[in-house]
Parts: sequence; C-alpha cells; structure tokens
Amino acid sequence: MGAVSTFGEILLRLSTESSKLFAQSERLELHYGGSEANVAVSLAKMGVNARMISKLPDNELTEHALATFKQHGVDTRFVYKGSGRFGLYFLEQGSALRGSKVIYDRAESSFAKLDPKEFNWSEALGGSEWLHISGISPAVSQNAADVCLEVIKIARSFNMTISMDLNYRKNLWRYGKKPADIMPGLVRYVDVLLGDPATANLMLGTKVPVKEYYGSADDLKESYDALKHDYSNLKYMGMTLREVKSANHNIVGGAIYHDGKMYGAKPVEVTPIIERIGGGDAFMAGMIYGLINKKDLDYTVNFATMASVLKMTVAGDFSLFTKEDIESYMGGKNLGKIQR
Amino acid sequence: MGAVSTFGEILLRLSTESSKLFAQSERLELHYGGSEANVAVSLAKMGVNARMISKLPDNELTEHALATFKQHGVDTRFVYKGSGRFGLYFLEQGSALRGSKVIYDRAESSFAKLDPKEFNWSEALGGSEWLHISGISPAVSQNAADVCLEVIKIARSFNMTISMDLNYRKNLWRYGKKPADIMPGLVRYVDVLLGDPATANLMLGTKVPVKEYYGSADDLKESYDALKHDYSNLKYMGMTLREVKSANHNIVGGAIYHDGKMYGAKPVEVTPIIERIGGGDAFMAGMIYGLINKKDLDYTVNFATMASVLKMTVAGDFSLFTKEDIESYMGGKNLGKIQR
Amino acid sequence: MGAVSTFGEILLRLSTESSKLFAQSERLELHYGGSEANVAVSLAKMGVNARMISKLPDNELTEHALATFKQHGVDTRFVYKGSGRFGLYFLEQGSALRGSKVIYDRAESSFAKLDPKEFNWSEALGGSEWLHISGISPAVSQNAADVCLEVIKIARSFNMTISMDLNYRKNLWRYGKKPADIMPGLVRYVDVLLGDPATANLMLGTKVPVKEYYGSADDLKESYDALKHDYSNLKYMGMTLREVKSANHNIVGGAIYHDGKMYGAKPVEVTPIIERIGGGDAFMAGMIYGLINKKDLDYTVNFATMASVLKMTVAGDFSLFTKEDIESYMGGKNLGKIQR
Amino acid sequence: MGAVSTFGEILLRLSTESSKLFAQSERLELHYGGSEANVAVSLAKMGVNARMISKLPDNELTEHALATFKQHGVDTRFVYKGSGRFGLYFLEQGSALRGSKVIYDRAESSFAKLDPKEFNWSEALGGSEWLHISGISPAVSQNAADVCLEVIKIARSFNMTISMDLNYRKNLWRYGKKPADIMPGLVRYVDVLLGDPATANLMLGTKVPVKEYYGSADDLKESYDALKHDYSNLKYMGMTLREVKSANHNIVGGAIYHDGKMYGAKPVEVTPIIERIGGGDAFMAGMIYGLINKKDLDYTVNFATMASVLKMTVAGDFSLFTKEDIESYMGGKNLGKIQR
Amino acid sequence: MGAVSTFGEILLRLSTESSKLFAQSERLELHYGGSEANVAVSLAKMGVNARMISKLPDNELTEHALATFKQHGVDTRFVYKGSGRFGLYFLEQGSALRGSKVIYDRAESSFAKLDPKEFNWSEALGGSEWLHISGISPAVSQNAADVCLEVIKIARSFNMTISMDLNYRKNLWRYGKKPADIMPGLVRYVDVLLGDPATANLMLGTKVPVKEYYGSADDLKESYDALKHDYSNLKYMGMTLREVKSANHNIVGGAIYHDGKMYGAKPVEVTPIIERIGGGDAFMAGMIYGLINKKDLDYTVNFATMASVLKMTVAGDFSLFTKEDIESYMGGKNLGKIQR
Amino acid sequence: MGAVSTFGEILLRLSTESSKLFAQSERLELHYGGSEANVAVSLAKMGVNARMISKLPDNELTEHALATFKQHGVDTRFVYKGSGRFGLYFLEQGSALRGSKVIYDRAESSFAKLDPKEFNWSEALGGSEWLHISGISPAVSQNAADVCLEVIKIARSFNMTISMDLNYRKNLWRYGKKPADIMPGLVRYVDVLLGDPATANLMLGTKVPVKEYYGSADDLKESYDALKHDYSNLKYMGMTLREVKSANHNIVGGAIYHDGKMYGAKPVEVTPIIERIGGGDAFMAGMIYGLINKKDLDYTVNFATMASVLKMTVAGDFSLFTKEDIESYMGGKNLGKIQR
Repeated sequence: MGAVSTFGEILLRLSTESSKLFAQSERLELHYGGSEANVAVSLAKMGVNARMISKLPDNELTEHALATFKQHGVDTRFVYKGSGRFGLYFLEQGSALRGSKVIYDRAESSFAKLDPKEFNWSEALGGSEWLHISGISPAVSQNAADVCLEVIKIARSFNMTISMDLNYRKNLWRYGKKPADIMPGLVRYVDVLLGDPATANLMLGTKVPVKEYYGSADDLKESYDALKHDYSNLKYMGMTLREVKSANHNIVGGAIYHDGKMYGAKPVEVTPIIERIGGGDAFMAGMIYGLINKKDLDYTVNFATMASVLKMTVAGDFSLFTKEDIESYMGGKNLGKIQR
Repeated sequence: MGAVSTFGEILLRLSTESSKLFAQSERLELHYGGSEANVAVSLAKMGVNARMISKLPDNELTEHALATFKQHGVDTRFVYKGSGRFGLYFLEQGSALRGSKVIYDRAESSFAKLDPKEFNWSEALGGSEWLHISGISPAVSQNAADVCLEVIKIARSFNMTISMDLNYRKNLWRYGKKPADIMPGLVRYVDVLLGDPATANLMLGTKVPVKEYYGSADDLKESYDALKHDYSNLKYMGMTLREVKSANHNIVGGAIYHDGKMYGAKPVEVTPIIERIGGGDAFMAGMIYGLINKKDLDYTVNFATMASVLKMTVAGDFSLFTKEDIESYMGGKNLGKIQR
Repeated sequence: MGAVSTFGEILLRLSTESSKLFAQSERLELHYGGSEANVAVSLAKMGVNARMISKLPDNELTEHALATFKQHGVDTRFVYKGSGRFGLYFLEQGSALRGSKVIYDRAESSFAKLDPKEFNWSEALGGSEWLHISGISPAVSQNAADVCLEVIKIARSFNMTISMDLNYRKNLWRYGKKPADIMPGLVRYVDVLLGDPATANLMLGTKVPVKEYYGSADDLKESYDALKHDYSNLKYMGMTLREVKSANHNIVGGAIYHDGKMYGAKPVEVTPIIERIGGGDAFMAGMIYGLINKKDLDYTVNFATMASVLKMTVAGDFSLFTKEDIESYMGGKNLGKIQR
Repeated sequence: MGAVSTFGEILLRLSTESSKLFAQSERLELHYGGSEANVAVSLAKMGVNARMISKLPDNELTEHALATFKQHGVDTRFVYKGSGRFGLYFLEQGSALRGSKVIYDRAESSFAKLDPKEFNWSEALGGSEWLHISGISPAVSQNAADVCLEVIKIARSFNMTISMDLNYRKNLWRYGKKPADIMPGLVRYVDVLLGDPATANLMLGTKVPVKEYYGSADDLKESYDALKHDYSNLKYMGMTLREVKSANHNIVGGAIYHDGKMYGAKPVEVTPIIERIGGGDAFMAGMIYGLINKKDLDYTVNFATMASVLKMTVAGDFSLFTKEDIESYMGGKNLGKIQR
Repeated sequence: MGAVSTFGEILLRLSTESSKLFAQSERLELHYGGSEANVAVSLAKMGVNARMISKLPDNELTEHALATFKQHGVDTRFVYKGSGRFGLYFLEQGSALRGSKVIYDRAESSFAKLDPKEFNWSEALGGSEWLHISGISPAVSQNAADVCLEVIKIARSFNMTISMDLNYRKNLWRYGKKPADIMPGLVRYVDVLLGDPATANLMLGTKVPVKEYYGSADDLKESYDALKHDYSNLKYMGMTLREVKSANHNIVGGAIYHDGKMYGAKPVEVTPIIERIGGGDAFMAGMIYGLINKKDLDYTVNFATMASVLKMTVAGDFSLFTKEDIESYMGGKNLGKIQR
Repeated sequence: MGAVSTFGEILLRLSTESSKLFAQSERLELHYGGSEANVAVSLAKMGVNARMISKLPDNELTEHALATFKQHGVDTRFVYKGSGRFGLYFLEQGSALRGSKVIYDRAESSFAKLDPKEFNWSEALGGSEWLHISGISPAVSQNAADVCLEVIKIARSFNMTISMDLNYRKNLWRYGKKPADIMPGLVRYVDVLLGDPATANLMLGTKVPVKEYYGSADDLKESYDALKHDYSNLKYMGMTLREVKSANHNIVGGAIYHDGKMYGAKPVEVTPIIERIGGGDAFMAGMIYGLINKKDLDYTVNFATMASVLKMTVAGDFSLFTKEDIESYMGGKNLGKIQR
C-alpha cells in the first residue's frame, strides 16, 4: 500500500496546565501539532505509512518537533527547513462552562511564506497514493493558498486520492481573501471531504440545508445529497456528531456519506475530556484508515468515531492508539474497565 | 465613580493539591484570600476601583500578599502593617462525595488583635462611595467586632452604601459572643445583604420562613419579604442558589430581591468544579458591580451568577474575569466552546 | 481484641500520572499495595490492630515499603526479608471510556518463590484472631498456593476467623493450574467470603445463578443461597455493587449475606473517581471491621460501602479514613460539603 | 538497651521550593521537624529505640506529623494531644551568597502553652535511659522553660543520662527572660552538651575563650577546659566545625571533648548542600549513638560528623541514614561513587 | 523625587526547566522580561518610582505581563496596546560548561513596528526626571531606532538624565544597519553609560584600549578615559566585572567611572547561579538608584554589584530585592547564613 | 558509509528525582538506556547511521522504549519482541559525598533468556560496517554470553570493525562464571577497546601495570603497551580520565592509544554534574565517530571527551548533541557562555 502524505503547517502549541488561565500561568505545556500533522501521527499509529510535507525554520525547535513526529513513526524527510518563524499558538485550557481560548501567532511563519516553486513535488509525493490537506493552510496566506492548489493538482495528476478537512478558523483568513474565494477551486479536486453543512456553505458558498443539531447520521443525508449535487467529485463525506455539554463533556458520534447512503456511529458520552483538540483529526485519520484499507463503511465510521473518542481521553493533539487499541473498544466493549 | 472599600482579614491559605488528603501531602499550595479581599479582587478585575482596608504583620509574607493583590489592580495602600501573626487556614481539597476540610489557624492574628483606634478612617475611606464587610470579621474577636461597628458607623456618616455578606462560619465565634449578640447591631446599617434565610435567622435571630431547597428566585420572596419587614434598611438582598451534587458538581443559579420583587438567574450545571471557595464572593462582587453601575436587576443577577459560575472554573479564591469575559457567557452563549 | 493478620504479596506499583498513557510518561508514581496489604492499612486506619505477613527482598525498596506501612500503623514485624525480586506492576491510568491497563511483572518475586517451611507461623500468627487472604496469592505460583493452604490450616487450628477475597486476575494463573484446581480446597476453610457469583463459579467450579447486573442486595440472595448450599462453612458473603459508567464514574453500593438474609447499602454516584484500585479492599476492610467489632449488619454493609466510596476519592491503593471519617458520611450526610 | 527520649516542640515547616523566594512561591513544601524530633528520627534510623515526648493540637496535621515520625520508626505514644495551635515556621531557601530566612510562627502553640502538671512523667520516661532536650524549648515560653526544668530533674532522679544542644535562636526568647536567666539552672544537670564556646558564653553567662574560627578539634580544648571548670557535671562536650563558604557550600568537621582530651573528625567539603537544616541534630544523634553503644570517641566523632555530612545531602530535617550507610562513608571511602 | 522612565521592548520568555535541553522539554517556564523592563522592576523593588513606556498587542498575554509588572510596583500606564505580535524568545538553560541558548522570535512585534508618531511623549514622560534605554531597541528595527532617537531628544529637552546600557546582541541588528551607524547618534545624548570597552568600540566605532580581562575597576580607567575623550557628555560609566567559570559559576565585581576616577566593588564567587539573565540589568538599576539618591560612588558601586549578585541567586529576569535586602549583604556580611 | 550496529540489553531505568533517596520518593523518573543503546543514540545524534540489535517483551513499555529510540533517529527494526520481562534498574541519585545507588532487577529478562539461534544475524547485521558490544551483556547470563560470542564471530566473518567497552559491573556476573572465564574469548576479536588498566586485569586476567590516578594520557602508555602485547588484535584503546571530587563534581579528560602512541584531551572541571550515567558511553560514541569518519586521533580524543563532558550536563542516559554542538565547545571555546 502506498503512503498517505499530508501537507500543512506544523505548529508549536503552548498551552496552560489543565484548567489554568493565562493569568495564572507560570509555565506552559509544549506540544507540536497542526491539523494535518495530527492526521499523519494518528495514521502512523494505526499502522499506515504516513508522511508529512511542510516547511519549518532551521533551529532547535524544529529538531525537537521532527523528533516528536519520528517518535510516532511519521516520515519527516519532506519537512523542508528554511527561513521564517515557527508558527505557534497559545492555548488557554477551558473548564466546565468556560471555553478554551486560542491566541494565534502564525504571522511570518516559514509555512506562511512558502513559495510554490521551492518544493520538489515529485520527490515529496513519490510513493504516496493519498494526499490529505485542510482548509487551514489556504487561510494562512496567499502563498499558502497557491501552494495548496499546486499540490492538489500535482496529486491529481499522479492519480492520488485527495482528502480535505474543511476546518474553518475565524481568526485566520486575514490576508484579504474570503474562504469562498479560494476553497471551491480546491474542493473541486477532492475525493473525501470532512465537514458539516454550515461550514460547507460558509467556505464553499453553497446553500445546502443546515440543521441546528445532528443527533444521528441520517439527519445529514439531505445536506450531503445537496453538496454532492454541487460537487459531484466528492465520493465520501463525513463529520463527527458532537454535542457540547461543557468544555469537559461532549457527546460524540460520527457519520459518513457515500453513494447516497449514510453510515453512522452511535454517540457516546465523553467525560471528562482530557483534551478536545485533535478529536476531528483523529476521526479524519480513522476515515482514511478505513478507506485505504477497503474496510466496509460501517466499520469505518465506528473506527473513526472511536479513534476520535479515545483521542479526547489523552493530552496533546495526537491520537496515539493502534488499530488494536481502537478495535478493542468498538461495539461498546471494555469501556472504562481495568484490564488486569 | 468612587471606590469600593472592603474591610476584613486577609488570610494565607495553604491547601492540598487537587484531591489530596492532608495525610498524603508533601507540599501545599499557597493562596491569599479572605471573603472581603476576594470581593475586592473580583471588583478590580471587573473594572471597579477597589480598595482593601486591613492589617497584617510586617514580614515577607505580607509583601507577597500585597504584591498578589496589586497584580490584580487592587489598591492596597490602606493595608496597615504591625504586630501579630498572619492569619491562615489549611484546606484539604474534597473530591466527589468527600467534602473539603478547613483547619482555621487565626488565633492572635494582626487582624484579630486590631484596636479600633489605630486606623485613620477618614484617610482609609476617603474617596470611597461603598463599604463592603462580611460576617466573618465580627466572628474572629471582640476587637474585630468593635472595629466593624466603628467602620460601619463612619461609612454611614460619609453617606456610603454598605454591603454585607452574612457568611456564617461555625468554627469561628469562639470568643464568647454568639452571632445574634453582634450581627443585628451591624446589619441595621446595611443597604445590600447577601445571605440565605436560614443563615439570616441564625445570625440575626429572625424567624423568617426557611425552605429545604430554593430552585428559583421566586422561592425566596416570602423569606426576603419577612426579612425586609424586620430590617427595613435592607434595600437589596440576594444569594446564590446552589444545589450540591458533590464536591465537584454543583448546580448554580442566583437571586436578587428589591422592592418586593425577585430577579433570578437560571441555574446551570458546574462540573467539574475546579475550586468551590470564592464562588459566593464573586456573586457579591457581581452584585456590587451591577448596582454601582446602575445596571438593571435582570442584568445584575445574571452577571453576578455568571461571575460566580466562572469563578468555580479556576483555582484560587479570586474571580479573575473582566466584565467582557463574564458578559461573553451570559445568556447561555459560548458555554464550553473553543474560541479560535 | 486480637489482631487481624493478612497474608499476601506486597507489590510496588508504578503508575502513570493522572490520565497519561505509558507512551506519554516521563515519570511514574510510586505506590506500595497489594490486595491484602490494602486491607491491612484500611483496618489500621479504622483503629484495628492490623498485621501483614509476607516476604520481600532485602533492599532499599523494601525499607521504603515497610516505612510506608508503618506510617499508617500496620505491624510489619512479620514481613520477612530474603532472596528474590520485589514483585511489581505497571499501571496506565484510564480516563472516560478508556480503561486502565495493568502490566504485571511478578515473575521470580520473593513471594512467588516462598517455601512453606520458611515461616514461623505460630510466631507470625500469635495474638491474631483473624486471618485474611485473597485469591491472588494462589494465582502467583504453586509455592504460593501451597503456603496459602498451610497458613489457612494453621489459622483454623488456632480457631481464627478466616476471610477471603476471591479476586480473580486473568493475567495471573500462569503456572499450570486453574483456579478451580486450587480454590475449592482453600475456600472450604473460609468463614467470610468477598466475591460476586460469576467469579465464584469461575474460581470454585460452582454453578450458582448469575445476573447481568445487581442493582440491590436482594438481587444476590438466590446466588448466595446456592453458594452457601455448596460451601456451608461460609458464614458471611458480600460484594460491592458496582455499575461502571466510565473509568471516572461508577455507581457503588454494597451487599452482605448472612444466615439467608441480605443487607444492603444504597448505591451512590462516585465521580470523578480519583483512583479505582483498592475500592474492593476497602469494602473488605469495612466488613471485617464491622464483624470483629460485632456491629449489626446494616451498619456493617453501610460502613464497608462508604469506606469503599471514600477510597475512590483519593490516590493510591489505601483507604486512609478513620472510623469517624467514614461514619461522618454514612446516611447521606455531609456529602461534598465544605466543613469550615 | 533502654530508649532515648527526646522532649521538645514538633514544628510544621513550610519551605519554599529549592532556591525560590517567598515572593516567587505558589506552593510550599511541607516538612515536620524540630531540633529534638530530628534527633529522635536520626537515632531511630541508626537503630536506637527512640521516643518523642511532646504536645500537639488534636487535628489532621498532628495525625500527619505522627504518621511521618512512625514511618521512620520513632515511638510517638507520648506525644499528647490537646488545645493550642501547631507551631510552625516558614523557611525561604537561600542560594549562593543569599542566606535562608526563617519566619517563626510559634505563638500560642500547644507546646508553648504546656502546663508542667499535665504530663505523666513516669509513664512517659518509663524504660528510657537517656533524655535529650535543647535550648530551644526554654526559649519559647516560661511554661516551656518550667517544664524543661521539671523533666530534667525527674530524669536525673531516674538516673538517666541527659544531653542538651544549646541551639541559640535569636528570634525566640521573647517572653521576658534572657538565656542566662534560665539555661544555667538546666545545664547544671546535663551530662552531654552540644555547643560552641561563643554560644555557651551567651547562654550560660560564662566567659570561656572564643576563637573566630575552629579549624580542628584541638582549637577547642582551651574553651572546653574552661567550660568544664565552670560546669564540672559536663562529661562530654562537642560541636560541628563548620566553615560557611555559601548557602550551598560548607566545610564540615566535628569535635568531641572528654576527660580533658579532644577527639576530631577531619573537615570535608559539602557542596551542593541540599538542605542545611538538621545538620547539627544529626551530629547530636551520632554522638548519642556512639556514647550509648559505648563506641570509642574516635569512632564516635567520625560517625557523628559523617551523619551530619550525609544529612546535608538530602531534603528535609531528618538524617535518614542507617548505621551501615554512615559507616560505609567513614574514612573517606566511596565518597561520590556510583554503587552498581 | 521624579520617576525613572524606561523605554524598550517587553518580551515573553519561554525557557526550559533548570538544565533541560529544548530536545528534552515537555513544558517551558513563562517569564516576562526585557532589559529595560528588568531595570524598571529592580528600581521599583528598591523603592524608586519606576515607569515603563512600551507597546504590546491587545491580548491576554499582555494583560498577564502587565499584572506581573504591577505586582512588583511598576507604573504600567504608558504601555500602549495595539497591533502586532508579542515579541518573544526561547531560552535553553545551560549547565556547567554548556552555555545557554537563545532563539529570538521578535519579528513583526508591536514594538518592532512602532511608529514614532504614535506616542504622546509629554504625557508618557511627564513627572520623570530620568530616562533609561538600551542598545537592544535600536537593534530591532529602523522604526524602533527612530523612536529611540526621538524619545532621547525629548527627554533631553525636558532636562532629564539619560542612561543607556549598550547591550550588544549579535543575533539582532538584522534590518540593514550596523550598530555604529546608529548608536553614536544616540550616545551623544547619554549621561550614564553601562558597557565594557570592547562593546563600546563595536557599537560606537571608537578605538579605546581593550583588555582580555578586568580583574579590578582600575583596569578600566584607561579605556574609560579614552571613551570620555570621545564622548565628553558621558558623566558616569560602569560595568560588571565578570569572570565566567561556567554557566553556573561566575566571579562578579563591578566598576564605576566618574570624573577621571574609578570606584570598584571586590569580585565575589557566585555559585550556583540560579539564573544569569538580568544580572547586568540589576547592576544598572543599582547604579541609577545610587545616582538618583545622591549616594557616594563607593556605596553605589557596591550596592549595584550586590544587586547584581543577588539577582543571580533567583529565577527569572528580575532582581526582587529591596534596598534593605541588598544593604544587609554589603561589606561581606551574612553571606550564606541562615537568618533565624 | 555503513551503519554501526550495537548489540546489548535495553533497560528501563527508574530513578529518583534529583537528589532524593528511595526513602523519600513518591515518584520515579522513567528513562530507557543501557550502555550499548546509549552509544547508538549518541552516534545517531552525531549523524552516524546507528542501529540497535536486542530483544524486549511484547508490551506497551517496549513500544514506549522503541518510540524513544526512534525519536533520536536510531534504527530499531532489529529489536525483536518476545517472551520475558523488561530488564530494569532502580537508581537513587547521589549528591555531594553521597554516591548514587543502583538496584538491578534484570532477572528473567527477555535479553537474559536469549537463545543464540533466534536471531537472523545476516539480516540484523546487513549493511553494517561496525559492531559495538560491552562487557555487560556477558555478565547477565550464560545465554547472553553465548550470543555475544556468536555475534562477534559473525561480525568478524563480515569484516566488520568490532568495538567493546569493558564496563565491569560487580552486582552482575551472578550465573557462575567470572569475567576472566568469558571475556578473553571475546576480546580476542576486538579492534577498539574502552577500559582502564585495572578493569582490564580484572576482566581479562592480565597483569598490566595499574596506577592510582591517571592525570594525563601519557600516564597510560605503559599499561596499554602491555595490554597490546597480550592482545595484539587491539588496534585502538581508550578511556575517560575521571577524578571524582563528589557525585556532582568530576574532572574529566580522555585518552586514546594507537600504534604505541597516546593522544589526550586536557581534563576540565564538570560541576554540577546533572547526570553521571552515560558519560562513558558518550566517549565511546565519540571515539567510534572519529574512527569511522577517519578523523585524526587528536580530534577524535577531544571530540569524544567533549561528548562525554556535555553528556554530564543533561539528564538521562543519552548524549543528545550533534557534531556541530560538540565541535562548538572543543578547544575551550564558548564554555558556559550565553549564545544570544
């Protein structure tokens, strides 16, 4: 099986300890992440040959970041080093009704300043059968948006499958373009899309039906049918079904759409949530895992959902669970029990 | 707008880490607090000019305490330094069904040994339009009770508004007087009172109706009407509505009484509670904030309740939230969501 | 009143911090435990003269372990020192739906290599009126199983009361014998048995009725009647009633059977669970406490259940609560309230 | 061999982490200590039957303190519980040229309020052959000074050996008496005295010769001869020889005087010092160990000095080293080497 | 006495724990600093009315930074908030022979993007008699260099005393100018200069004599005479005398030049150094303290040197010592002794 | 250039925090190490293609260990998984004159139970030009000794260079053989030997001259000449020159012997030592680095010594320094300086 390549920015995350405010913090926890990087780690832990394509500055933080990804088995040979800063964000961890807060600090990062010409794409994509990107990269800068379009076209020319997580971030998109100026041109090339209907409308300019709340996969069929109508290239669509009770308590299920049919995983209670961030990326990874391994879609949606649920029980952005770990909890087995 | 002055003892709190017992503790967390000091910090963070009047020993712990209050913007010029100990308490943090435990160690503190003559009250209260005290100070010693009466009378003579939080502490009141010997003489001067009906009866000797449980503001009207009948000087009364599910899980609402009418905030679930202490003080601060800024009472009770709810999501005694922070969660918005 | 002697292996537990995975751990928390040792500590804290009989290697970890037990008042004079390793296990702490994981590392331990001849039993048991063992010791090695039988017979000859916690551990029993080869021979001597019907069937080869779920003590009567029919020597039987909502949330009650009658404690919610391990041992200790002090069985089952519930609110394997601590929460009083 | 009883106040110490200032501290480390208690722990670890006689308040901190002492094998049966506070002190840890700072908070402690009548001395001292006290107790309050005289007289009547560490503390002695008013009356009964000549003059009103610096035991002979002349009851005298290079670097030796002769241990460099406090108490314990076990004085002074040196390599007030540990370093062996 | 205003960038410092490498770090310690800010804090702790003039982005980190400075008594009213990033740097703490490493991340900071027109200088400088700046600000960007020149000229027009710390940073000065293009124009206005001869030559283009090593103040006279010859406006010059034995061990003295005469403080050993950063700023603050309080220069150089030495014994960038703290160690008193 | 393969046991190390005793430890730090594994990590960080050949049990700790090695770039494909325990050791960190203590717990480990037949050596060694082993493996068990001989012979048949670190461990060698029974048969095949003369005599049964202390490389010539005489196959010999001042303070140099000539690195002071363990392995790695890259021996001995010195400035067993890091300190440059 060929590799899955992900392309996107690697971020340094500096987060407050457990439920502390910035105002109370004497130290910050250091994690490396980024939506696409998280997908790569999750895939590697699931046993998939996963590769990251990105750019970072040439300093000790980059060495630390790469060591972190290598530790989890990700292929980092195509993370190029050059000028610019290490993009970072500060995270204040929420608690109960108080939500988490993000302060982005990504200006002038090595990734934001990418030049479409500087990558050797046939080398970087060589041996891959899948490319994964997200809607965060084109939100960072015009350069990054241009590179996204380029990599997607090249991947298409290599007959690779292309997945995208829409991932709308309202605090980005500051360089003069709106999502709907950019995203439709990218999504035209996509085979597998992660995103809810409201985000799709916002980023693609579509007008598919939107509901307040999706209690089960079937609630999404109408919307995904409409999206499929507009973007007939989309072979698979999906999303996590998430009801936010509080920062520490979500009810989490999942849905996949294919060929006019919905496949769903029954929502389960997740409380306490140790770390919310990365839950969607773990679902994305689970979905890629199922599709690339040609699992049936019932298995795939349950696998992806349980990957997402398990992710929320550990700190950091990554789902560190193997295929066996995830399967051991599917179907409601072993939940919360001591294994001894 | 004039300053709000608070008068009361500043305490050093030494608490066990998260859910540890004293029996398991190799270190203790150090916080400074005290009901009135907590109100001052909360007010300062809300943007009110807040001042503390108190007395502490002349040592490095006092310097540390004052730096802590200055950090949050409280005016500490009238915290006098002199003889005596730094009053302190040890706190064992509860968990689930196991409640927290307090060991008071306030004997011979600088505050307990206060001499009513030693303060220059016109200087200390100068520029203030509001005085806040609580029922804890008169519980500490006869000296402290005497000074409370003096400061209240002087504040009255300056036409200041006077608020009091009844705050019954069964482990204090050890110097030979009962609450009902002292408190009625003080409450006669009070404009704004925080306290539930049972506590009012216990501390004031009144016999207003008491219910087992107050699910909404309206459940309190009869009791507050009766209290208003006995103490016609009380312009506003209020309390948090708290159902204790466990040490980590409360359901919290709020109520304000004015002019024979009740104003309420709908109870919300707070779990996990990071720190229960200071929740009432944050409500008191929110109530003062609303009244001094002439907000309507619907806003005020919701603002005070959300201040109290947010307080419980952070460690330490203080509500560190700005007006904007609190308002951003009022009306059920944004609860538990990541802001990014 | 005579002492309660417990016989079993003392383990070094190395556990991940709060909800961390092994894969995320840079340090491990060090606790000493073991089912029988936990019972001894719980009893000592309840005010019972408690003694441990065991064997450990002659090194600094053993000195540390013994200091830990002495700290809580356990008599450690009969923990013999000799050859072999310190038996240990690694514990990955679960969270939400993710269960805890145990990696046992007990091969070649001083206890597993015990020689039945090496203990001076009349000295070790002298002054005891009660012997407590568990089904874990005979699971470790043939030697350990042999010593269990020997100590039980000697205790019987001394007219001591004998209690046993069945405690099935599927990852042990590796030396060629099955539970049903060994346990019936031991349980024949037992007066007080802790265990659920399914475990009894598995370990004793009985076929008593088994239910999916025991919501109250009465649900157990039929099964315990049947067990009593097979093992008429069993004077008291009991178990905790536990519904596992998640790794952090159980609903916990308790049941005792005697003379054809059930005595029950109403299940209560325990969330968050700080540490699940040791909950059963605390119940066992509470049951021994009640029986040895000739308390009535209603008191005993409620005392044992509350001991178990409180245990789950603290880290480590031990219930560190005194009789007064436990009684202060019985009957639903004070749950989750601050005592100040 | 009979027990060694120590009489003195048990203190709760709250110290800053490593080199932090009070002004930088968010938490404090919790230790229990007190000069006489430290001697008891050191003796117990050396294998001597050691007992503490003292008084503490009846609360959870006392239970924690007693558990700590029991852990190290000290007999705590005669630590009486009653009214008053737990005496405590705050310690700011020094570093390099910056010295440590102590804030005493011992007013109104259970020990300071001792009544000479409240102890049953024949019970408390029963089975002891040695009593150890220090010059700190009579510095605390008149009551404490009175009890010191009483216990010393009773011990003398029981033919017990009496040791005293002069231990001058300039921040105590606040109740109206000077050391020279009290100490001579106590030292008249003492057999074994720890203290340097300058302290002796200050506390006893003697005028023995004082040197700036004692590089070896012999430098002390003239002073101790003179002290022996004034207090002919003193059979043994001794002190640590300490040159303070910085808070983290001392050069430490030791000296014992007996029968007109000096016995010395060669000074060694101790850097980094992990904890300076308790170094003198470890020497005292080592000296008692040697004398009670009838070791020769060359061994004794070297054993006591090495106990003191090892003490400084660990956190907390106690020397946690066994006889074998200490002996393994005597004579310059193994210093700083890995044992593997 | 008028205030001392400092102008410069406030930085967020993210440093590894004690001696950890970036490659080993799971968390970073958070401090706020910056050479001029450090001087302001040191002065405030010494009792001088100190003010910071700067610019930061409008976010929660800025609120945290300002609270930190307010805590220590610094006037933060003239720290303007606006666009741009929070300038930051990453610090890997060295140990023994391994030096510390700094990764600057100051591009596009609010300060670097300063517009000379945006400050209201008469308001910001109002009530000040002294302005302090450093050679770091003009190294950041042309804008910052321009603002430095403007503020210096305005301060001169207000007859304020002007001090500058040359502070060469080889990793800055990246915007196309060399120090010698900019610094002479600024230093022309300076009264009090901190810097060694080699740095002066490098930044000012002078050719004053340079020695390998300055063991005492007198070794500097020739160089400072020459510098005074070129810049006759310099009334006082000074520097710390530092011999670097290792990252944890320096020998530190100090020197001041005035009117052709040298004043020196004898070097002392500082080991272990808890934190090297901020040592020069503490000296600068001590020098300003002495001059503004019209102390003689022998006192001043000894005060400044001891401030610098004490700084190195605490974590973080700030000297948190009062005038009394510093004086208590001057003249070699109390070094390393416990104060109890 | 071909890979360097190391063969040896991978150990889990559980060590006390900084200077804590086992008796004081509530948690232990977790590191993975082992002499040969440490060499592999050091080489990988230096840029050499480094591979580990070993065996571990099939559990989560093994996954964690492998992730740790992958993070640093070591090839772990030939760490086989199977039955047995994870070999471990407990480390009590020494301080000042108190040495560190090791408790080995390696009985029944997967490595100790190795069967010489179970490895596919041509696969495992394929592509390697160098094999590194140490004298620890043959000390563990007869099986391990047998496998060592086998791998050495196969490596020889592949014309690989063979290096060995003698590494005597007195607490191992428990299976009935003495070093001199086994080691000569192995060393006969060795090209590059690390070890001091006394250890050589002890392990090889030679009688080469031994000195008390080696202050410079030349002091070793006579001994190494004699060893070369007995083992003419030894092309290079070497050792660190270490004077142990205390657990935290060593003076460290290095020596290499080749062709009858000595090459030395001047000893430097290393204080404080953050972690002593791994210092010799870093030297070994540096020596291999120099030889495999055909550096001259002056460079090589200085590179190896500086690698060893830098290793001691960081926690854990590994030298995490790149070639550039190490070279930047060679020749006495930059020692202890801040790089900013």
